[in-house]
Amino acid sequence: MANATCWTVVLVCVSATCTILFFSSIGGGLLSDVVPQRAFKSSYPKTKRLPPPSDVPPPGPCTCPTGALLLKDAFPAAEYKELMQRRHKELQQHKNRTESVLSTLLYARSNSPLQYPIQGFKVRPMTPTIIPGLALHAAQRSTYTVSLEVSKGVLSTVTPAEGAKVRGNGESRLTVESSSLEALNELLADVSYTSTFYHIHTGDLASFQFEDHEAVFPITIKQPQPPVLYDMGTDINSQVTITTKTFLRYREVNALLRSIREFYKDMEVIIADDSFVTEKITGDHTQHFIMPPAQGWFAGRNLAVSQVTTKYFLWVDDDFQFTKGTNIEEMVKIMETNPELDVLGGKVVENQFPFSIIYEEGDETEGGCMHRKSGGMFHSLPGYPQCSLVSGVVNFFLARTDAAQRVGFDPKLKRIGHSEFFMDGLGSLMVATCGHVSIGHQKGRANNNYGRFRHPGVSDQRFRSQLNFFKNHLKCLLFG
Amino acid sequence: MANATCWTVVLVCVSATCTILFFSSIGGGLLSDVVPQRAFKSSYPKTKRLPPPSDVPPPGPCTCPTGALLLKDAFPAAEYKELMQRRHKELQQHKNRTESVLSTLLYARSNSPLQYPIQGFKVRPMTPTIIPGLALHAAQRSTYTVSLEVSKGVLSTVTPAEGAKVRGNGESRLTVESSSLEALNELLADVSYTSTFYHIHTGDLASFQFEDHEAVFPITIKQPQPPVLYDMGTDINSQVTITTKTFLRYREVNALLRSIREFYKDMEVIIADDSFVTEKITGDHTQHFIMPPAQGWFAGRNLAVSQVTTKYFLWVDDDFQFTKGTNIEEMVKIMETNPELDVLGGKVVENQFPFSIIYEEGDETEGGCMHRKSGGMFHSLPGYPQCSLVSGVVNFFLARTDAAQRVGFDPKLKRIGHSEFFMDGLGSLMVATCGHVSIGHQKGRANNNYGRFRHPGVSDQRFRSQLNFFKNHLKCLLFG
Repeated sequence: MANATCWTVVLVCVSATCTILFFSSIGGGLLSDVVPQRAFKSSYPKTKRLPPPSDVPPPGPCTCPTGALLLKDAFPAAEYKELMQRRHKELQQHKNRTESVLSTLLYARSNSPLQYPIQGFKVRPMTPTIIPGLALHAAQRSTYTVSLEVSKGVLSTVTPAEGAKVRGNGESRLTVESSSLEALNELLADVSYTSTFYHIHTGDLASFQFEDHEAVFPITIKQPQPPVLYDMGTDINSQVTITTKTFLRYREVNALLRSIREFYKDMEVIIADDSFVTEKITGDHTQHFIMPPAQGWFAGRNLAVSQVTTKYFLWVDDDFQFTKGTNIEEMVKIMETNPELDVLGGKVVENQFPFSIIYEEGDETEGGCMHRKSGGMFHSLPGYPQCSLVSGVVNFFLARTDAAQRVGFDPKLKRIGHSEFFMDGLGSLMVATCGHVSIGHQKGRANNNYGRFRHPGVSDQRFRSQLNFFKNHLKCLLFG
Repeated sequence: MANATCWTVVLVCVSATCTILFFSSIGGGLLSDVVPQRAFKSSYPKTKRLPPPSDVPPPGPCTCPTGALLLKDAFPAAEYKELMQRRHKELQQHKNRTESVLSTLLYARSNSPLQYPIQGFKVRPMTPTIIPGLALHAAQRSTYTVSLEVSKGVLSTVTPAEGAKVRGNGESRLTVESSSLEALNELLADVSYTSTFYHIHTGDLASFQFEDHEAVFPITIKQPQPPVLYDMGTDINSQVTITTKTFLRYREVNALLRSIREFYKDMEVIIADDSFVTEKITGDHTQHFIMPPAQGWFAGRNLAVSQVTTKYFLWVDDDFQFTKGTNIEEMVKIMETNPELDVLGGKVVENQFPFSIIYEEGDETEGGCMHRKSGGMFHSLPGYPQCSLVSGVVNFFLARTDAAQRVGFDPKLKRIGHSEFFMDGLGSLMVATCGHVSIGHQKGRANNNYGRFRHPGVSDQRFRSQLNFFKNHLKCLLFG
């Protein structure tokens, strides 16, 4: 009974609606769905937040933590202006390289008769690909017309059947018209997109229109990448390489080697050496690389890591000492059970020295604000209460070779630098630290020139500030 | 006049609609927009393609080009099974690391009263962020109830005013209810998302519901990365480093150095040397690195590139010769005007040797199919008709240091390897080649052991096939 009444009312409404459609098309086609929104203005108000923001606002100036170093003070005032121009230009290039329309804010508008993909539609460069899920669901009309428009490619569909029209086949704007909604939707189901330029990773925005409705959706243009995998083989020696850097400390590095061989007889060891007068370092599975004198600390690290052929490498300083606690198998196990991890640190003697990095993007001119904070773990690693996620760790860590090489140890850092690897890697390295793996530290020091070089002077500090200012586009930096 | 009529009709329809709402809410609330879709079933059919595909189908087996090498034949049958298992495990890890819900196919459904962001909503890990543009636009009801649900974080909004209810504040499912649509939309405008786990780059899917409507939209969870920029300074020597690798060919490498100094007196040159018996290579701005004997071709390239501190490096072979055509300034200019480029090759004597790589992802077990094809340029570089986009170039190229280091020269490749750099870099390197920059080739060869080592044996070929099979997860490979 209720149903019957319902159907009559519906019929009334349908015809009513058609009348409205008729009128409002005269009245400039200000047409929403079944009933013009105007009609309901009185019955439900729009929200205050419409229209939604069309894009993410650029970040404003960030606030420097108290006690932070203002990095521009590290430059002579005379150089500053020219330097700022160079930095600004590099930042613009960086943005061109890292941003695309794929990061603009887009919205699905309410009460739209259009259906379209909002995520996951990916095409190879210059390869025709059907756009999935395009459809129109509108109330009855004498004829339906939808159009699609793109800017970095062309659109096409099949030849229409009787009573349907397609305009702009093979062009950047495609219009499909039909008196049958079904025929229209069949043509929409066959619309394909072809990017007209070769690019390894960019995007396009498609505008999908019907009467006064417009939807904009993203198209990801991406050249597929073959995976780059490491064969771990079957034993620990095919999985991990030990890497270190030495300078004027043959006594220490040889003691390190002896301690390694106590526990890992056949593991490959790579030594980067930039001493002034070099001594041969020999032994099975020991690779000694000789650099120009005093090439520097990070240059040596980067060299050693560039020679690793195993999936993981273990970083140790040349005056460390392997102990029973130096359990590489355990570290590999943790990394393998958490494949998202890139770096896993342990304890040096009793110290874990983890740190977190708080980074705030600043405005384009001034730059960002960074605070390197001792401690500050995020939360423990699933399944490993002894391990926590952090931003950076001490000089004893296991790392995925591919991930560490992608970030790199900046060879510009000659005498100081440790946090810099984790600063450059912030956002691209997943880092954790564990309390149940450790390495020892050799007692006593060789009586040589080492100290004179090891301890950074004021000029090194200034150089590092200058580097952070330009390279990481920072305004200020606090080590605390 | 027309308008007046319109308004009367509208009033009719409004009341009619309300009646329908009343009935259909009795009838189980199968309610779409203003009028139940049921009502229109007769008047417009659904398309055949609904519901749209919920996700991208995994790639099927790819087809090997005729004449391609079947890489599994490079292994003893006995090893094959175990090898396949190891490769499969690494592929799964690779997918965990590179894929997330952010690549699943999502659709905006038609005639939904929900408004929501479909792209560009990005949050920092564990940091509350307002979800922009959430709104409901539905016809009048006695009360409105919407809910939002996420899986990797929690949702919250402000304390509701009179007549509005909020359930699940600070939980993963938030329900907002109000008799006023405006009040509801104000609460929606203040809904924020906070991820509960730390991750540098992943995503969540939010489900937004109203009655029988559901919309699913993506949330990008990303730790912001500080940029890593190079200060180019003001002259060519602060912009480019020349890199090469030598082995038993001091005569050639010294001739190369002399030719470099004719044109670039003060440019830094980095030489990686893995000769058996090493001779000193000296000179200003000349850095000589000594590797363990016969460490290999790509190991040397990777070493040299790991030491570069300039934005660009120029790769040359040790038996090349600089000429007037070796115009590094021009190459830098082209790269700077096309910041998306990563590698720019030129001519060696008269040859450009460009190639394109056709790569088809295969199924998970068998792997992909690759065809390295001589020639095959995509299209010319905007503004440079003498330059074209390709997949790979000859041994004379200028590269962005950061981009090349990210891909790396696989040190496993000892005696052969050139295309491998571009195969590993497919999809992450934008490569072009130009006909108007060139380098010479030294005439005559030193009479030494070089040839014996330089020319790969069968074992090297087999090793390379084994590497391609595992590392790039390939089924077959054709060099043509």
